[in-house]
Amino acid sequence: MGCSPMAENGRSSAEEKEETARRMKQLEQKLFVQQQLIKQAKLPVVVLLEGWGSAGKGRLLGRLLKNIDPRGYKVHTMQPPEGALRYPAFRRYWQTIPKEGEMAFYIGSWYGELFPVRRENRLTPRQRAARAAEICRFERQLTDNGYLVLKFFLDIDQKTQKKRIQKDLAQRDSAWRVEQDDRYQQAHYDRCREEFEAALALTDKEYAPWHVLDGREGKAAALTVYEALTAAIQRAAGEKERTALPPADVTGGFPLAPIPPLADQDPHAPEPSDYKGQLKALQKEIRALQDRLYRKQVPVVIMYEGWDAAGKGGNIKRLSAALDPRGYEVVPIASPEPSEKSRHYLWRFWNHLPKTGHIAIFDRSWYGRVMVERVEGFCTPRDQRRAYSEINEFEKQLTDWGAVVIKFFVNIDADTQLERFRARQEDPAKQWKITDEDWRNREKWPAYQQAIDEMLALTSTAYAPWRVLPSCNKHAARILALTAVRDELKKRL
Amino acid sequence: MGCSPMAENGRSSAEEKEETARRMKQLEQKLFVQQQLIKQAKLPVVVLLEGWGSAGKGRLLGRLLKNIDPRGYKVHTMQPPEGALRYPAFRRYWQTIPKEGEMAFYIGSWYGELFPVRRENRLTPRQRAARAAEICRFERQLTDNGYLVLKFFLDIDQKTQKKRIQKDLAQRDSAWRVEQDDRYQQAHYDRCREEFEAALALTDKEYAPWHVLDGREGKAAALTVYEALTAAIQRAAGEKERTALPPADVTGGFPLAPIPPLADQDPHAPEPSDYKGQLKALQKEIRALQDRLYRKQVPVVIMYEGWDAAGKGGNIKRLSAALDPRGYEVVPIASPEPSEKSRHYLWRFWNHLPKTGHIAIFDRSWYGRVMVERVEGFCTPRDQRRAYSEINEFEKQLTDWGAVVIKFFVNIDADTQLERFRARQEDPAKQWKITDEDWRNREKWPAYQQAIDEMLALTSTAYAPWRVLPSCNKHAARILALTAVRDELKKRL
Repeated sequence: MGCSPMAENGRSSAEEKEETARRMKQLEQKLFVQQQLIKQAKLPVVVLLEGWGSAGKGRLLGRLLKNIDPRGYKVHTMQPPEGALRYPAFRRYWQTIPKEGEMAFYIGSWYGELFPVRRENRLTPRQRAARAAEICRFERQLTDNGYLVLKFFLDIDQKTQKKRIQKDLAQRDSAWRVEQDDRYQQAHYDRCREEFEAALALTDKEYAPWHVLDGREGKAAALTVYEALTAAIQRAAGEKERTALPPADVTGGFPLAPIPPLADQDPHAPEPSDYKGQLKALQKEIRALQDRLYRKQVPVVIMYEGWDAAGKGGNIKRLSAALDPRGYEVVPIASPEPSEKSRHYLWRFWNHLPKTGHIAIFDRSWYGRVMVERVEGFCTPRDQRRAYSEINEFEKQLTDWGAVVIKFFVNIDADTQLERFRARQEDPAKQWKITDEDWRNREKWPAYQQAIDEMLALTSTAYAPWRVLPSCNKHAARILALTAVRDELKKRL
Repeated sequence: MGCSPMAENGRSSAEEKEETARRMKQLEQKLFVQQQLIKQAKLPVVVLLEGWGSAGKGRLLGRLLKNIDPRGYKVHTMQPPEGALRYPAFRRYWQTIPKEGEMAFYIGSWYGELFPVRRENRLTPRQRAARAAEICRFERQLTDNGYLVLKFFLDIDQKTQKKRIQKDLAQRDSAWRVEQDDRYQQAHYDRCREEFEAALALTDKEYAPWHVLDGREGKAAALTVYEALTAAIQRAAGEKERTALPPADVTGGFPLAPIPPLADQDPHAPEPSDYKGQLKALQKEIRALQDRLYRKQVPVVIMYEGWDAAGKGGNIKRLSAALDPRGYEVVPIASPEPSEKSRHYLWRFWNHLPKTGHIAIFDRSWYGRVMVERVEGFCTPRDQRRAYSEINEFEKQLTDWGAVVIKFFVNIDADTQLERFRARQEDPAKQWKITDEDWRNREKWPAYQQAIDEMLALTSTAYAPWRVLPSCNKHAARILALTAVRDELKKRL
């Protein structure tokens, strides 16, 4: 990190100023036109403006936005969170990511948790490396999925910072701009510079590089941003396929817990002895465990996938009936709404994570990516191949956060499905449960089976293994599911 | 408020118990089937479970939910907010309202701000009346729009409460259930009873009546809830038109600031002298005012409506260019997404209100209800007639909260529109701005003009008057808009 040569040579000449103004006008025009390009190419753009306190981030952004249609961007001002976190740290950043065709500008961002702040928050090198790794993972998750991520750092020297702070403090209406962190940086400038430099070095990646700007020269800084931004947009919009290739190891290299293919799994299981008694006992145990989970603030993610008419709904109902309704939520996943479809496909799941101490039960899930989206061709083969590692990484993030993750595949055979479809059609109270789409999906049974087998093979990880529930006998499947939930919760406690 | 005779006579006999169990089974079945009815009738259902601390609200809800498909409801546990509010108090409740066809159960709700809690929060009678009025308004806003709102209060005597608290405290895993408020109520039972009774009396309305339950008898209480719930669902689902009639005075009786019809408003205005200089000066003034608004934490809502091609976008851009990007957001309003369309039409606007000290600029707005939805017939005539008073009430809520509300209608004549449409078609950089829909809307100019005139006449209130901007000359319209914004902000400060 260092100031650009131009700035080091002092103020630019009048000639240079004119050239800057001309070039600026040109680039402003270009960016204005590019907003259409962004929309057409469905490009989501993330722009970070970071830097020293009082370096002029707000002013710089104001300058940039002057010529952009305000309907095409959002500005996010983020502070590091205060108090205990009830959600994974990155959830609040996920929530802000732009839709395709839109831009999001950040003043204050996920770097708030990495950059130097007051003494009490000082990071050890180990902590710093861990946070930087988290940040890199997040940014890569975005860029892998076609997001453009641009990061700018406004650099100023100690003297300039001092001058700016004093100027702001002098006026009542701007004094609020000077934050405690700014003063802290001023008082410990050298140490903060070291920390900034270490942080930038750790997070300067090919997929999301840093651009360091001279904060003393507002116009020149704006020019650099415009140049980098317009060039990156032009390049990205022109790419035929913007998303990343799947990794060589499509599982992402996470440890697997192998599981046999469906053909080797008997969907039949005998009727449990004393079903009602067993169910009641399990529900009571789970209810007591929920209280302890709440006290220990452990979050739980339970997920159901399965064939149509396999008995997911009834299974979930027996589980949720066991729980204190204040501590769980059933999240039914249907086809995405426009606002969901136009963002990273994991976005809506980040939005539905449970709080610590709470339980989220997903009725269908992120595995839609490698099941229905694959079979129906809703995403490109490349996106679909990459999804296994992305999902494994996502679930790793959940377990690293401390969540218990339990994944069920509710299994039946094709004959049982046919029987249940017919029974539904004949029962007026259940006709709503059966649609033409169910019949259409049924015709694609072999394609789904292939997709499911691959999914089971590639996403059954040691930390979040799949459990296949034989559900030709629904009672048996329920007892198995509740037993698994009980055992997993017990294991954690 | 009082306990039911059955409870007063002590425990029910064995015969009564059997009858209760039989009846319960029946109603559980009924509610299960009604979930389909709710979906078909697109009925949104709000169920509140309130009552004394430790009265068994959680247990009661658990019992109720056992037989409901967990994909059809959400449970909300709400505490009164802590710390300073940055949004109107009811925004967080609005955010939780269910979609049509779904149920929302509340344990802890908007009544948290009215019911007795610890001494430091004790309300004066005046405060209590004001909060009760706010609550009634909110519930009426929902029921007017076809929501079913059911409210249950679990009543217990002092001795029972004491016993329950002690029982919960005895076990480590349930001790967390006993809240500080519960103990406070126990220690000040009589006073709390008085306050509960006063609160219930103030909020017991025909559109959202209270049902008081005997909390000592869990099963009997559940039975009463089932009975009230199933009866209300049956009745509501059967109604041909569920929404309320418009009031006799369609403005809702709010004070009006009369405004001439469009035919009497000249859309032409002369080119301003020194447009650039004036614009720059106004932007500078507004920027300085924004700092002061921020410091004083005043929220600002600016809203643009207008003809297609009237120049809304350019006008908004000149305004937003004046502002610190950290303190404003432009909210473009397009046709609603499914999740928006299936809720009260004001829901999405509640979600986009500015924080205190911030500015929200709406590009189109809630007035879609009385413009496009009217002209295109997207809502019933009854809903549309009722909308004027609803909108006036909504804007009153905003100004009561402390917001500055500024409403612009950007006006041109049909000839100017035609000219601009043609110019857009000929300019490759602007072709995207003109669609077939624009031409179709143009054919409906007279219908729109009628709708707009009625809108201007019925929703130009003293606290949120309309301003019609003559925009055949865009420069003039911009100067007028920025002048109005400056004057309004100044007036407030």
